[in-house]
Amino acid sequence: MDLTGIQPTRNQNYSQWYQQVIAYAELAESSPARGSMVIKPWGYALWEIIQRELDDRLKATGHVNAYFPLLIPLHLIEKEAQHIAGFAKECAVVTHHCLRADADGRLHPEGLLEEPYIIRPTSEAMIGTLYARWIQSWRDLPILINQWANVMRWEMRTRLFLRTSEFLWQEGHTAHATAQEAQQEALMILDLYQEFVENVLALSVIKGEKTKGERFPGALTTHCIEAMMYDRKALQAGTSHFLGQNFAKAYDIRFTDQTGQLQSAWTTSWGVSTRLIGAVIMTHSDDHGLVLPPTLAPYQIVILPIYRTPDDQARVLAQCQELKETLSNETFRRKPIRVFIDDRPLRGGDKNWQWIKKGVPIRLEIGPRDLDNDTVCIRRRDQACNEKQILPKTQFIAQAANQLNAMQNQLLAQAHDYRRIHTHEISCLPDFIHLFAEKNQPGIQGGFALCYADDNEWVEKQIKALGVTARCIPYDQDENEGACIFTGKIVRKKTVFAKAY
Amino acid sequence: MDLTGIQPTRNQNYSQWYQQVIAYAELAESSPARGSMVIKPWGYALWEIIQRELDDRLKATGHVNAYFPLLIPLHLIEKEAQHIAGFAKECAVVTHHCLRADADGRLHPEGLLEEPYIIRPTSEAMIGTLYARWIQSWRDLPILINQWANVMRWEMRTRLFLRTSEFLWQEGHTAHATAQEAQQEALMILDLYQEFVENVLALSVIKGEKTKGERFPGALTTHCIEAMMYDRKALQAGTSHFLGQNFAKAYDIRFTDQTGQLQSAWTTSWGVSTRLIGAVIMTHSDDHGLVLPPTLAPYQIVILPIYRTPDDQARVLAQCQELKETLSNETFRRKPIRVFIDDRPLRGGDKNWQWIKKGVPIRLEIGPRDLDNDTVCIRRRDQACNEKQILPKTQFIAQAANQLNAMQNQLLAQAHDYRRIHTHEISCLPDFIHLFAEKNQPGIQGGFALCYADDNEWVEKQIKALGVTARCIPYDQDENEGACIFTGKIVRKKTVFAKAY
Repeated sequence: MDLTGIQPTRNQNYSQWYQQVIAYAELAESSPARGSMVIKPWGYALWEIIQRELDDRLKATGHVNAYFPLLIPLHLIEKEAQHIAGFAKECAVVTHHCLRADADGRLHPEGLLEEPYIIRPTSEAMIGTLYARWIQSWRDLPILINQWANVMRWEMRTRLFLRTSEFLWQEGHTAHATAQEAQQEALMILDLYQEFVENVLALSVIKGEKTKGERFPGALTTHCIEAMMYDRKALQAGTSHFLGQNFAKAYDIRFTDQTGQLQSAWTTSWGVSTRLIGAVIMTHSDDHGLVLPPTLAPYQIVILPIYRTPDDQARVLAQCQELKETLSNETFRRKPIRVFIDDRPLRGGDKNWQWIKKGVPIRLEIGPRDLDNDTVCIRRRDQACNEKQILPKTQFIAQAANQLNAMQNQLLAQAHDYRRIHTHEISCLPDFIHLFAEKNQPGIQGGFALCYADDNEWVEKQIKALGVTARCIPYDQDENEGACIFTGKIVRKKTVFAKAY
Repeated sequence: MDLTGIQPTRNQNYSQWYQQVIAYAELAESSPARGSMVIKPWGYALWEIIQRELDDRLKATGHVNAYFPLLIPLHLIEKEAQHIAGFAKECAVVTHHCLRADADGRLHPEGLLEEPYIIRPTSEAMIGTLYARWIQSWRDLPILINQWANVMRWEMRTRLFLRTSEFLWQEGHTAHATAQEAQQEALMILDLYQEFVENVLALSVIKGEKTKGERFPGALTTHCIEAMMYDRKALQAGTSHFLGQNFAKAYDIRFTDQTGQLQSAWTTSWGVSTRLIGAVIMTHSDDHGLVLPPTLAPYQIVILPIYRTPDDQARVLAQCQELKETLSNETFRRKPIRVFIDDRPLRGGDKNWQWIKKGVPIRLEIGPRDLDNDTVCIRRRDQACNEKQILPKTQFIAQAANQLNAMQNQLLAQAHDYRRIHTHEISCLPDFIHLFAEKNQPGIQGGFALCYADDNEWVEKQIKALGVTARCIPYDQDENEGACIFTGKIVRKKTVFAKAY
């Protein structure tokens, strides 16, 4: 493997660059189970931090975790017609409960089940059925439950983190006594997702509502956050659905209200998944590999000891150990700084490039000369690879958290700028078509088109022919009206369109 | 629901008592997916603490987490013959990848897969295949990976937490350059499990090796920890397998050693599961419901405010809030004490019984009189329900951690005693048979039989006819020899036998 740059570069071939970044950083790889990936330790460490950070936020807002079954019997998903239509084409179906070996040792399915099961593509059907058991009175509401789980949506064309048959996610499912309370919950979660992806992942997102054609199957409203990747394609980073009483009616979630009337509950569901890791890669990484926002980095500082003689080795390692302890007592965004000493017996240059490719924010080299001068040599992942700073040790310790913070802010500011620069107000169809025409750089797209558009099936069909989808109707827009660029009809809202993952 | 005692009692009907404890504590319930349970929020909170505590210990010993696919293609599990034989009878098989709705809206499997998949019953086959890719040289060893995941072993007769088709667990999989290193790893993990279940779950366990007939399919040695439940049946609380080179040879995990020779690696695997929650219930709970060891309790102290007038309400709640903050700053076993204020508008007596049934270690009542006297009223879950202590507030705060610690130690000591009292040295077959004959109390068994026994198939068959299994050959035993009580043959080791979950 070439240890210096990623080949091809981002601009040469974005899709291959993406795969190479993942391979060099050892985040994930494809597996013998078609369409499913293996999340390797460095990639899973990112997911663990995402889980911890998001879970803390969900618990602070009154949610609790639970665990619901993986398998859903067919008769349960038959109950919500739109929901079936949305997932029937991509369900893994369990039909047998054991295996029989033939004379050659080959295995065959055996024990046909009376009723087949699907592996959950999402859990509304299962959780709705249980909420119907658990909810009798207004006193039982609201129910605010989240689940961390694996789900399965059969995919033929897969891409690591972005589109795999099995993926990991959290799915929140809440039930409320009133429509207003459920709507507030769905919007509160959307705000929470935005704060989380901005502050932890340094993603820049637009908050808005999905068009009718892009709604979650069975939802009345789907709220979403949409991010822009370096290739200017959109990536849906999180969704929050107001399900109205659709699922409550299909699954019989009813309660006696304070006046003694029997009512159907109002429900929401919402989720983010391991595709967020794909979003981080495609937002921040560069032609040297992965770049991690410090809040997400499993190690925020990696210390590389440098020595030739056994005497130096002992002194240098002792100094590294002391520095690690001192730095671990410092905090960055209210958590201890995560420090790792890499004293594997490899060439210093090789180790340096490995940590560049794994996206570690700060690398510290410590050699005998640093010991003599009481200095450290610092390299930051968001600066040029050959750039280094020699700082007095105490000065670095005092400003370590600030450096991480500066990098975190810088990455978020860059992401905001990039999205702003490549979002275009479009007022006529030719400009729209031109924006999404193929460009010279393979894989780099036009960006986001923001334009007045009618929310109907005909429009969705037109844009689908261009390989473009409606991403959302942003919440943050002025009060004006304008002509839909596809139909000419005067409408009140602009919609964001883009090619998307 | 009766709010005071569990009906039937432990001694009246142990199995029904167990179900009632779970129902009242709202830990879990059966689900519409046959054989799978729903883990409800209070039950899942226990699992989250188990995960956090165990994960910290695994990371401190150099292990990292990763995530491997749920589905395993049949050709992969065909590779290890013993392994197939062990799991073939209980595999959920995925045969189709989509659904078709008929005219009546009924769904049917569609899209037959070229090769079926099983849902992982354990991941040796998948992980072995990937380790073969990742390991080339001795420099790549050891690999020390753990996974937190759901697994599926089809069960016809299920019992919440103890035996369900789907369950949650962690599975560690390691690969080493030498047999000795792999054996040390397997034993180190067994020690880690013992320390964990003793100090966090207050379980008392025997450490030992499984007999040949009880080994993990494909293992050379299975190490285990066995606990005794209140009904004196055994529960396998954790296993750690030395797999030798069996899986390395089946899955081609080979490496070039330091002399340039190609070698097969030596592997281990080990796991504990959600059945640990069943073990906690059956070790500590009583006829009033669940009893939680303080280290495992999601709330260690619940504060129950008592007031009649709005004036009192304001004063009392302010005092509760202040007390919660003060107590949360105290630490118990190096973690902040977990405190909850229950100010739901319910009768004080009802709330009190609910928290008894949920097993919370300490309940604090605070009413207007306590404010006037600067006292708190304390009830401990391990003491009689009507027993209470009135203590000066400052005195309670100063000794809160000590009280939790006393309860934790008390539960562990009880568990040790119970296991010791009901473990019987048996030297002849009639005594053995007598020990396991049905007793007057339905469901309460004879205990553990410790006796010299030959490790062979014939013996396993004899005891199976008695409904008894060999639990383990304990590591901690003297150097004597004795006659196998089944065959008369002189053997060097005693074995523990018991009825088991």
